[in-house]
Amino acid sequence: MGDSVILYSYWRSSCAYRVRIALHWKGIEYEYRAVDLNAGADAGQFAGEYRALNPSTEVPTLCIDGQVLAQSVAICEYLEETHRGRGVSLFPTDAVARAQVRRAVELINSGIQPLQNARVVKRVRELAGAGAQAEWTKEWIRFGLQALETVVARSWQGGPYCFGTEVTMADVFLMPQAYSSERFGVSMTDYPTLNRIVQNLHKLPAFAAAHPDRQPDAPRPGA
Amino acid sequence: MGDSVILYSYWRSSCAYRVRIALHWKGIEYEYRAVDLNAGADAGQFAGEYRALNPSTEVPTLCIDGQVLAQSVAICEYLEETHRGRGVSLFPTDAVARAQVRRAVELINSGIQPLQNARVVKRVRELAGAGAQAEWTKEWIRFGLQALETVVARSWQGGPYCFGTEVTMADVFLMPQAYSSERFGVSMTDYPTLNRIVQNLHKLPAFAAAHPDRQPDAPRPGA
Repeated sequence: MGDSVILYSYWRSSCAYRVRIALHWKGIEYEYRAVDLNAGADAGQFAGEYRALNPSTEVPTLCIDGQVLAQSVAICEYLEETHRGRGVSLFPTDAVARAQVRRAVELINSGIQPLQNARVVKRVRELAGAGAQAEWTKEWIRFGLQALETVVARSWQGGPYCFGTEVTMADVFLMPQAYSSERFGVSMTDYPTLNRIVQNLHKLPAFAAAHPDRQPDAPRPGA
Repeated sequence: MGDSVILYSYWRSSCAYRVRIALHWKGIEYEYRAVDLNAGADAGQFAGEYRALNPSTEVPTLCIDGQVLAQSVAICEYLEETHRGRGVSLFPTDAVARAQVRRAVELINSGIQPLQNARVVKRVRELAGAGAQAEWTKEWIRFGLQALETVVARSWQGGPYCFGTEVTMADVFLMPQAYSSERFGVSMTDYPTLNRIVQNLHKLPAFAAAHPDRQPDAPRPGA
């Protein structure tokens, strides 16, 4: 591995999307390796070689500094610890402010994403049918976004982003969640503070470059 | 609030259990306030006063340093940032080692716990019945523990704890997950490395003091 940075990603994975934003934000160049999450039983994330890198058979996995890192929160915290400074930091310096950013991150990371995860949703469909599956996903997204809207609106300082004028890890996690929410039929316009922030984030080059549609494994229009 | 530290907790909540361990480990005295998660529609975590503190109507919530903190990962990271040093730190100093600890934490925090969460399990029962519910919980716990066993066994250095001779945040998260796993019918003996570590953790006073059975709102034996 050595000096090269390799990201194992899937275009539509919200967890990989988080890490892509953080890498772009910090100006870290990386090689993109697509892992096809729909490749079947012994391929994609279930292939032996990938499973050895990541025993939970999930994306993202990041090879950096000669190490194999997994879990988007752990990767993002690592990138923050190793690439800090003016214009690239994703956490405030004050411990209380950092705790509030991590609270928002967790409302998405442990509060919503695990319940909209493809393998979880697939299991709900097997157990209860396709109609129940669609409702399941929307219910948990709505529940989580409502709590997040309340928490962010309270601490929001009128600035363009979740915690004021500086982009934080909360924004890095919000953008992919907004993408997933729309994909699963929950409109962000129901959450006015979050929606306004997402519109602002779309204008940032690092966020735009990390968008699913711009990844090498995204379906080509008309293909 | 001022100088007093108040933990809103429920005896059997694994997320509250994590924060209780971290508080005991760091020697932080706190007042225990029980939130009854089975109190009904407008009581317990759904009471207006509690909902104002924690809009996602979950435990734990920690009032400390004049602030209201929520989400166990965010709280534990805050306690680490504000209470570090020999014998009380819960993260190694090396950034790569910290990323590996956080990876283990996340395999539990976002990989297992959200799927065994009481309100999620209740929804599965409503959609698919009590039998499906029991299988659901066991399946996700097994899936997550198998990945965790592989990851921890690889980095395990033969020491008593997940990452060697020092207790880390991974241990703080493992112990409550082991408790929940047994409660939902998954034996830790299927995961030999994790099981050995849990046995060692039981011997530590901070971990013992945080055990659900020792909390003021736990049912009294024979009651």
